[in-house]
Amino acid sequence: MLDNLIKISDLTKDDINEIVNLAKAFKQNKKLDNVAKKYVALMFFENSTRTKVSFDIAAKKLGFGVTNFDVQTSSINKGESLKDTLENLYFIGINAAVIRHSEDDIIERTLNELAYPIKLINAGSGCSSHPTQALLDYFTMLEKWGNVANKKITIVGDIAHSRVANSNIALLKKFNANVTVCSPEYFKPDKDLEVKFEPDLKRAIKNADCVMMLRIQKERIKAFFDENDYIKNYGLTTEIFQKYSPNAILMHPGPVNRGIEISSELLDSEIGKTILKQAQNGVFIRMAVYYLVLGGGL
Amino acid sequence: MLDNLIKISDLTKDDINEIVNLAKAFKQNKKLDNVAKKYVALMFFENSTRTKVSFDIAAKKLGFGVTNFDVQTSSINKGESLKDTLENLYFIGINAAVIRHSEDDIIERTLNELAYPIKLINAGSGCSSHPTQALLDYFTMLEKWGNVANKKITIVGDIAHSRVANSNIALLKKFNANVTVCSPEYFKPDKDLEVKFEPDLKRAIKNADCVMMLRIQKERIKAFFDENDYIKNYGLTTEIFQKYSPNAILMHPGPVNRGIEISSELLDSEIGKTILKQAQNGVFIRMAVYYLVLGGGL
Amino acid sequence: MLDNLIKISDLTKDDINEIVNLAKAFKQNKKLDNVAKKYVALMFFENSTRTKVSFDIAAKKLGFGVTNFDVQTSSINKGESLKDTLENLYFIGINAAVIRHSEDDIIERTLNELAYPIKLINAGSGCSSHPTQALLDYFTMLEKWGNVANKKITIVGDIAHSRVANSNIALLKKFNANVTVCSPEYFKPDKDLEVKFEPDLKRAIKNADCVMMLRIQKERIKAFFDENDYIKNYGLTTEIFQKYSPNAILMHPGPVNRGIEISSELLDSEIGKTILKQAQNGVFIRMAVYYLVLGGGL
Repeated sequence: MLDNLIKISDLTKDDINEIVNLAKAFKQNKKLDNVAKKYVALMFFENSTRTKVSFDIAAKKLGFGVTNFDVQTSSINKGESLKDTLENLYFIGINAAVIRHSEDDIIERTLNELAYPIKLINAGSGCSSHPTQALLDYFTMLEKWGNVANKKITIVGDIAHSRVANSNIALLKKFNANVTVCSPEYFKPDKDLEVKFEPDLKRAIKNADCVMMLRIQKERIKAFFDENDYIKNYGLTTEIFQKYSPNAILMHPGPVNRGIEISSELLDSEIGKTILKQAQNGVFIRMAVYYLVLGGGL
Repeated sequence: MLDNLIKISDLTKDDINEIVNLAKAFKQNKKLDNVAKKYVALMFFENSTRTKVSFDIAAKKLGFGVTNFDVQTSSINKGESLKDTLENLYFIGINAAVIRHSEDDIIERTLNELAYPIKLINAGSGCSSHPTQALLDYFTMLEKWGNVANKKITIVGDIAHSRVANSNIALLKKFNANVTVCSPEYFKPDKDLEVKFEPDLKRAIKNADCVMMLRIQKERIKAFFDENDYIKNYGLTTEIFQKYSPNAILMHPGPVNRGIEISSELLDSEIGKTILKQAQNGVFIRMAVYYLVLGGGL
Repeated sequence: MLDNLIKISDLTKDDINEIVNLAKAFKQNKKLDNVAKKYVALMFFENSTRTKVSFDIAAKKLGFGVTNFDVQTSSINKGESLKDTLENLYFIGINAAVIRHSEDDIIERTLNELAYPIKLINAGSGCSSHPTQALLDYFTMLEKWGNVANKKITIVGDIAHSRVANSNIALLKKFNANVTVCSPEYFKPDKDLEVKFEPDLKRAIKNADCVMMLRIQKERIKAFFDENDYIKNYGLTTEIFQKYSPNAILMHPGPVNRGIEISSELLDSEIGKTILKQAQNGVFIRMAVYYLVLGGGL
């Protein structure tokens, strides 16, 4: 049972393990008897492909009804607050809303304002939180290692603006992973994430068990960014990967900018396949989250 | 059995009672055996949240397939007439089209042009008609009172441009309710609605059984509109409500402009909850309409 | 069994007959036992009504889950390639992608790049290919005649830019139909289609068994186009039709520009009804294509 899914720090280790175990069961084709028919609304205020489709398919695999809340043509455009919209959706029969939004705290703040128990699931908010991504990444690591304690996990890229990094760090520290972040100075976060920081890519990934490359969000990038310089210093190639972290698994939340974060050669090799497994595991994690949030249980 | 749902004046009192009784049964969790699988298209040419989601969920609760007709990317943009589009949809297998449009008469006019029996359901047309809103409002009143005869119902706001007001008046007069409309001069309709008109808010709502506030459509409002002046004279506050109509139910079609039509304090009080019940009842009314239009019956 | 559906020339005559026979069975209300639940993504990079709704309803009639891939808000807008998007969709659980795109070869090219077996179905690409349209047209002809060998089929309009014409010609020639194309010089294709060309409408349709009018794509048309001149020389009226091809069936892929390709009088007569039957048959053809591509069989 989960009340909502807002951010990783709200979850206990037991909550996380329950989600992952249920996702694993779904992946092994667990059939659920008597799952009540539920209705969810997808409310994406920012672009997305895989996350939105993943939540859509996950709901449909559970037999839920899905309504696509079109932000462009909705009453939000008439000035209605998210709280008022959500309360109306609840009375219309929506059991849970899956929300992606550019603001860090809007989902949590709205949850606190709600007078009625529509369930909220965070599908990515601002730079701070993307809990289902961290959960699916953790699930993917567990499939490889069984547990993450003392594993060296290096996260590379725009750490300062990455909700993926933030949620992963929050989760991995709970389970005593050994996390290093690696970025140029201009992508270094202002606040202390309480993990190792190493600006040099080769030193950062040396002997890593997992190298997690983040997406350069070109659409958000300011004038200061020199792509060629970034590729030269932070682009991961087969050569560098094989030399410094040959036993690591390579992860990326997608979509990959080919030839920027990761070379096409490395991405298309067997090593790149883990990134697609992340996408695959995402559906099962989201099935588990829906199931637990909407009143199920193992 | 209904042929289509275009406007309230097409319905007999028996039709209306059949719809409401079936909505009530759905609300009490009536299960239908052997509802044939039907397909409906949602065609919203104007913004909407709750009405569109409500029709979507209502269809899905009946087990119908729903296709979202995206007006922006449709052949309507290639110049195809609504008649031709609808006839094609009929042959593709769509049993009913739910249409919202800015033109008053387009749905009825198109119905008269159709050579094939695709069913049309009006989800709001122009300033004149929003039949499912009037039906759900009536259902909400019946839950409170059993019947509306001689009840004093005051509708406040932009009467001239409100399809909600027009449809409610048409329905309530059939059942001998005592309807008053209240608005500033610039929102007074040109045509005679054959109901009382009282421009003063306090006099209009005095001893009312129901106060129905309409939405100020800020996105349509012209230069003449002075919001502060409107709030001062027509904004409903807890104080005014408690003094003049303490026993009334408070209704609003939503979305509410907080602090304009209704103060946040009043809206968030127990009195404001009826507005959410309207949203809830809307789904059951739409299930009933679908069921009756698409060939069912009690 | 079909691997994918990219273009007519990939299909044998047996493949085509299998598709049409299965479509016919679906039209006769064939129920399928044990159709596995599949998931399809609709990816429309160009405007469409009937094709998109047709693929949507066809999938829903088979009990499939449908996800609407919104091109405007997708990662394609973040620069992700179609190949990478499709591979991700495959791992997310999408079994087939239905793609409409303005580029001629993008679907085939992408298919060749794919490392994972997501199935591709062409819903119209560039000026060259629209295989399900040709299949549904063929199905409609077979309902009338049993077979197309030696039937005189005249295709009229913008032959040069019509994927409908190209796919129909490819299919009809396989089955030894007698195809004539008719257009003004400026719509004559550069490449030799290996069919008769006759610029005069009356001569072209004389004694035809089928007259297939193409849509003038006004939204694409350049300055050279004189609409009145086109209507005068290529617009089909009841008078011309009755005089030159009174026994023909009249077809059009839709949406018809009333009064341009076909007069309203002719369109609204009994003769125009075949065009709606094409729309109807499209759903059954698409059900058959889904079924065969996704692993079924007769």
